[in-house]
Amino acid sequence: MGIVLKNILAILPCGEKDEVKETSIYIEGDRIAAVGIKPEGFTEDKVIDGKDKLVIPGLVNCHTHSYMSFMRNVADDLSFMDWLFGTIDPIEQKMTDEDTYWGACLAIIEMMKSGTTCFNDMQMNIHQTTRAVKESGMRAVICRGLVGSGNDEAGQMRLRQAYEERDAARDCDRLSFMLGPHAPYTCDDGYMRIVSDEAKKNDMRIHVHLSESVSEIEQIKEKYGCTPIEMADRNGLFDVPAIAAHCVQVTDSDIEILKEKGVSVVTNPASNMKLGNGFAPIAKMLEKGVNVCLGTDGAASNNSLNMFHELSLLTLIHKGVGKTPQCVSAREGFRIATINGAKALGLEKEIGSIETGKKADLAILNLNVPSLTPRNNLIAGLSYSANGSEVETVIIDGKITMENRKILTMDEELVYKKVNEIIVRMELDKKEYQ
Amino acid sequence: MGIVLKNILAILPCGEKDEVKETSIYIEGDRIAAVGIKPEGFTEDKVIDGKDKLVIPGLVNCHTHSYMSFMRNVADDLSFMDWLFGTIDPIEQKMTDEDTYWGACLAIIEMMKSGTTCFNDMQMNIHQTTRAVKESGMRAVICRGLVGSGNDEAGQMRLRQAYEERDAARDCDRLSFMLGPHAPYTCDDGYMRIVSDEAKKNDMRIHVHLSESVSEIEQIKEKYGCTPIEMADRNGLFDVPAIAAHCVQVTDSDIEILKEKGVSVVTNPASNMKLGNGFAPIAKMLEKGVNVCLGTDGAASNNSLNMFHELSLLTLIHKGVGKTPQCVSAREGFRIATINGAKALGLEKEIGSIETGKKADLAILNLNVPSLTPRNNLIAGLSYSANGSEVETVIIDGKITMENRKILTMDEELVYKKVNEIIVRMELDKKEYQ
Repeated sequence: MGIVLKNILAILPCGEKDEVKETSIYIEGDRIAAVGIKPEGFTEDKVIDGKDKLVIPGLVNCHTHSYMSFMRNVADDLSFMDWLFGTIDPIEQKMTDEDTYWGACLAIIEMMKSGTTCFNDMQMNIHQTTRAVKESGMRAVICRGLVGSGNDEAGQMRLRQAYEERDAARDCDRLSFMLGPHAPYTCDDGYMRIVSDEAKKNDMRIHVHLSESVSEIEQIKEKYGCTPIEMADRNGLFDVPAIAAHCVQVTDSDIEILKEKGVSVVTNPASNMKLGNGFAPIAKMLEKGVNVCLGTDGAASNNSLNMFHELSLLTLIHKGVGKTPQCVSAREGFRIATINGAKALGLEKEIGSIETGKKADLAILNLNVPSLTPRNNLIAGLSYSANGSEVETVIIDGKITMENRKILTMDEELVYKKVNEIIVRMELDKKEYQ
Repeated sequence: MGIVLKNILAILPCGEKDEVKETSIYIEGDRIAAVGIKPEGFTEDKVIDGKDKLVIPGLVNCHTHSYMSFMRNVADDLSFMDWLFGTIDPIEQKMTDEDTYWGACLAIIEMMKSGTTCFNDMQMNIHQTTRAVKESGMRAVICRGLVGSGNDEAGQMRLRQAYEERDAARDCDRLSFMLGPHAPYTCDDGYMRIVSDEAKKNDMRIHVHLSESVSEIEQIKEKYGCTPIEMADRNGLFDVPAIAAHCVQVTDSDIEILKEKGVSVVTNPASNMKLGNGFAPIAKMLEKGVNVCLGTDGAASNNSLNMFHELSLLTLIHKGVGKTPQCVSAREGFRIATINGAKALGLEKEIGSIETGKKADLAILNLNVPSLTPRNNLIAGLSYSANGSEVETVIIDGKITMENRKILTMDEELVYKKVNEIIVRMELDKKEYQ
């Protein structure tokens, strides 16, 4: 099927700077067949009129836990330990595979409705996120959260599940897989080593939480006499392409390691603030040339999976922290939310920008809205004034998955109903909130 | 006309804590006739079914410059001086009264669409904001930005214009007026004194910018040997009820003055971060009992007038700054964005909460959306996961001004067109952006 976005403003890569340009975009099968000139023999099965629209590459959410969406707003304004052990953990003990499926569905709806077309997920219940991804038409990179010690059978079992999940999803090329050692405080030296050896052997990438909280730093220092980043490094996690989520509490020498080993850092500003962990030194990482990308984290700690919200936080807070209004510009922010994320996932030849030959993963925004009026500097608009609701139509892998804000691939109302039922079943609706 | 919101979840005041409760709300004329039980003789001219809806008091934006909306996204990622003198000032020299009118219209549309029902505006071109407010059905408190020195005729002229504007708007009871000495760096001692005397004589409130940037602190210290807050205080600005916008760079003794004199502080987190001014010590002010309220500032420095965005920043950044996840809770944030704002404007008996006898200024949100699913802690949802696009219907002064996201009182498309034309006329569309 040939889809054309006719005479539409588009954000196109132009060297180191993106530019906003009126053009036409031709989609054939799952790919962008051409930008600008209609390819020979192209059949226009579907024409989307570009008047008053802007098309951008779909945003890439590089760190989330989609199943957690059913836990949105259940544990707020709590200290990290009360949050994790007092609320989240007991809920996770009670949740079923179906719960995590509906959570993943809700996450995908929220992301699609705010222009995200690919997400990097660390999950707990195998086959559930992949099931939701397959059905929804989303693109995702999945890892099973691996927790264990070097001589622990449970850790081995989780590793087998990670492969089992990957093998069961070979029929869907919108899915790819990583290995996900959870964090230095939940995986010991021996287990980290097992996982990194497996990653090398199987040519897989690593997705790990690192240096999120001060208490993590203290704990790892005490146990191993080094920083979490050093611990990950010495266990070979960075010998394959790796994504490190958070990296809030990092030293200058940690940043050197991240840069030298080509580790991509996913920053999660909302979650880091909300749990009282602070601000990652993103300005310094960018200056050193680290590949910084952006993630929402899960809805239990954010509580939103809207990448436009995250982008606005990213481009605002570091100006405040550094008292420098030039810090993390709108242009930088936009790349962090798109092509840098694609690089982190090893998908930069496939997604992250609008270019001929890449996958057609696109979000089309309505420009007849207050947040994008006037139409002058639209890249600034995406960071500073848009809220995600401007996204009208989403195309993933060449298929229209949302049109005029209606999700075509999932039953939205059913998902809301099912998620509300989980909360009632768990009696979280009766809980006394702070 | 009688409007009833039937069987609807509502955020209702309950002592120091708000609560979410299912109820029915009866509106007669411009006021809430009853919450809960239908008043005798009430005629249901219009019934709004509350199924899957949440009604909240309209948000109160306590500091903005509505005319500046036509300058959205025109000056980003610039230092304060390049921003103000390099870009904003030259545009203000070229703008006409009509430009500021269309700017105000755009601001009102953006605010209404994100649940704001009252705003506190400092403007430059008289009669334009009031004109837009009258037509749109919005509620607003207006001041003419006063700049001058004690023996300066221009300053006197601006003061006369402030009265002229107030007098011309006596026919609209959604409008009220303050006096607006711009800031200590644009009004000298003598002029501040003239304005505060006028305020006392005429029983008017004061709206002023204070302690926004480090350079302001340095300048005032050098000129007057005190802080901007001390300078305002010694010139009598706090002898009437006053609203101080920003208060980012404040000392402990400044906070004492603000508390003692009952000054309301409007915090503007996005603008303060974006211009590199940093973070106001809001946690400390709240602890000391200062009445803190919330504002967006103008679209040239934010660049959004969406109070949901501002509320999320307010409830996130101070947790990050103070490394305390309990700091500025969702409940506190909600009050800061509603009733505290009403108090600052002297309108706490009229607006800011859903109570019998108050003006019917309400925003109705759709709950069948990802950001508010599941429906457990909806007050947390308003701060942390909502983005403003959940607002479906807005009632101001008992009249429906927006229904199912369509503004009933203004021609949205015309406003977008007019604002885009300003940018083209000023050749800002040809500008090379950072």
